[in-house]
Amino acid sequence: MSGAEFRTRIASLIAAVHEETTDFVTALDGGGQFREDVWQRPGGGGGVARILEQGGTWEKAGVNRSVVEGPLAPPVAQRLGANLGGATEAEFFAAGMSLVIHPHSPMVPTVHLNVRYFEIIGPSGETLDAWFGGGTDLTPTYPHAEDAAHFHRALERICRRHHPSFYSRFKTWCDHYFVNLHRSEERRGIGGIFFDNLRAGESGLDLEQLLDFVLEVARALPSAYGPIVERRRGERYGERERRFQLARRGRYVEFNLVHDRGTLFGLQTNARIDSVLMSLPPLAAWEYAPHYEPDSFEARLLAMLEPRDWVSQSALPDLI
Amino acid sequence: MSGAEFRTRIASLIAAVHEETTDFVTALDGGGQFREDVWQRPGGGGGVARILEQGGTWEKAGVNRSVVEGPLAPPVAQRLGANLGGATEAEFFAAGMSLVIHPHSPMVPTVHLNVRYFEIIGPSGETLDAWFGGGTDLTPTYPHAEDAAHFHRALERICRRHHPSFYSRFKTWCDHYFVNLHRSEERRGIGGIFFDNLRAGESGLDLEQLLDFVLEVARALPSAYGPIVERRRGERYGERERRFQLARRGRYVEFNLVHDRGTLFGLQTNARIDSVLMSLPPLAAWEYAPHYEPDSFEARLLAMLEPRDWVSQSALPDLI
Repeated sequence: MSGAEFRTRIASLIAAVHEETTDFVTALDGGGQFREDVWQRPGGGGGVARILEQGGTWEKAGVNRSVVEGPLAPPVAQRLGANLGGATEAEFFAAGMSLVIHPHSPMVPTVHLNVRYFEIIGPSGETLDAWFGGGTDLTPTYPHAEDAAHFHRALERICRRHHPSFYSRFKTWCDHYFVNLHRSEERRGIGGIFFDNLRAGESGLDLEQLLDFVLEVARALPSAYGPIVERRRGERYGERERRFQLARRGRYVEFNLVHDRGTLFGLQTNARIDSVLMSLPPLAAWEYAPHYEPDSFEARLLAMLEPRDWVSQSALPDLI
Repeated sequence: MSGAEFRTRIASLIAAVHEETTDFVTALDGGGQFREDVWQRPGGGGGVARILEQGGTWEKAGVNRSVVEGPLAPPVAQRLGANLGGATEAEFFAAGMSLVIHPHSPMVPTVHLNVRYFEIIGPSGETLDAWFGGGTDLTPTYPHAEDAAHFHRALERICRRHHPSFYSRFKTWCDHYFVNLHRSEERRGIGGIFFDNLRAGESGLDLEQLLDFVLEVARALPSAYGPIVERRRGERYGERERRFQLARRGRYVEFNLVHDRGTLFGLQTNARIDSVLMSLPPLAAWEYAPHYEPDSFEARLLAMLEPRDWVSQSALPDLI
């Protein structure tokens, strides 16, 4: 299933889903255009970075794809959770797409999505290990509980088509991943799904079935995020909402630079730094120890970040 | 020299220099007032955090002092460079002042200053190790070479009064410390001085002599920074200078969250997070791969970040 032919297929599927995503994000912005940088990695491979700044709806949107390969140092293999099967030297192949959208309006949440395929290749070209990772998560400024419910329900529908336990497992994984441990475990946002090291055999699915799942996650935005953008972008807001948005973006920066494994991996390796840090917001603020009145929208947003069941009907009424 | 009496004396000297610094920074701001939080550390000790936001000259200025003590875990001791002299358990005592000033105007540079005393105490109350650390560095947005020269010359004069080699050693240490390794080794600013683990006997000085030096570093701002603020704060600037200031502050955030040992130490221990992250700028920006024309003020600022000899007269003319 894996092997050279599969890798080539993955690379072209990633390219196709990257084009499709660029088109969707451009249309949803309604005004801006992406500019593109094509880059080569000195060690092998390269990528396509696309950025849209100061668009109709997005203040900054980045949609990247990359296909990189090269020698795999054993400590890096260990950090990746790779199984070298006793081999002392190996090559890696990694193909993926990642996206972060920071809207102008604090009424429209920030979204992040990433899918990736990793393969470890032995000295004779044999596949030693292969897995998928990815997910998507939402970071609102304004406490629209129905948006969080919409996002999670769309992801639950996608997951359900592939495996009955995927949504609840990957939702929990996400709740435990996007956490600012240094901020009393405050979450970056209201979560979504996150998964890694999904190998053939995972939950009885083979690599093709996992690929189907991952491609559907890659295409989740039209159902999971699009409707939220459509209904929120016209909403009025003032200085106070904008100010809180910038403070929440400060926490986004803290998570990405202090805790995010993907970002730290990029900083420590030979990755293209402008692509690695494309996820950082266009503008962010740090206020000293701000106080939010109980029941203010800021306090209600912070309460919404506590992990909860967004899918069942019963969890919502007291939040809306 | 070290011991309980010395620690008490250090704590009151730190408190005094903190008061003096607060007064100086308030007067130099010309309009704003600090507000204060007094905090206790659950493990022992506490501090006084002072913040001035949206003042006359400062967009955000934080001036903190703390005196903390408690058990010292061996891995932490190792990271600090402490000498436990074979002891398997020990207590630490740390007293210090730290300050970061982010001015409104991009024509006025950001400044950071920190002094600290560390002591390691054995089971019978004996001093196992004791040292000073600290320094000050300048982060300009606009390439005023004469400001960089002024700052370094003031520090050189201070250092020279205590030891002939201190300035050149601590200037070089600073050049190697405030570096965004992930940004092709771009420096955070134009440097200053940085030192750590200065123990009795260092360069032939005893602990009292080192204390004199460190207290003079703590009081460096009136001569090293004040005149720069006075001559720059009235200068006109526009959107372009402000935009570059926010981008440089983005790099400041990257350094502090990814590389700064003090910040990471704070994030990993039980430190008060609002004090640890008080150094972060009020507002920062990330633009994707901006291009600066050769000879633009932005390109000239970036060139100024390359370490150079700011003290001798010959280094300057082609920069101004």
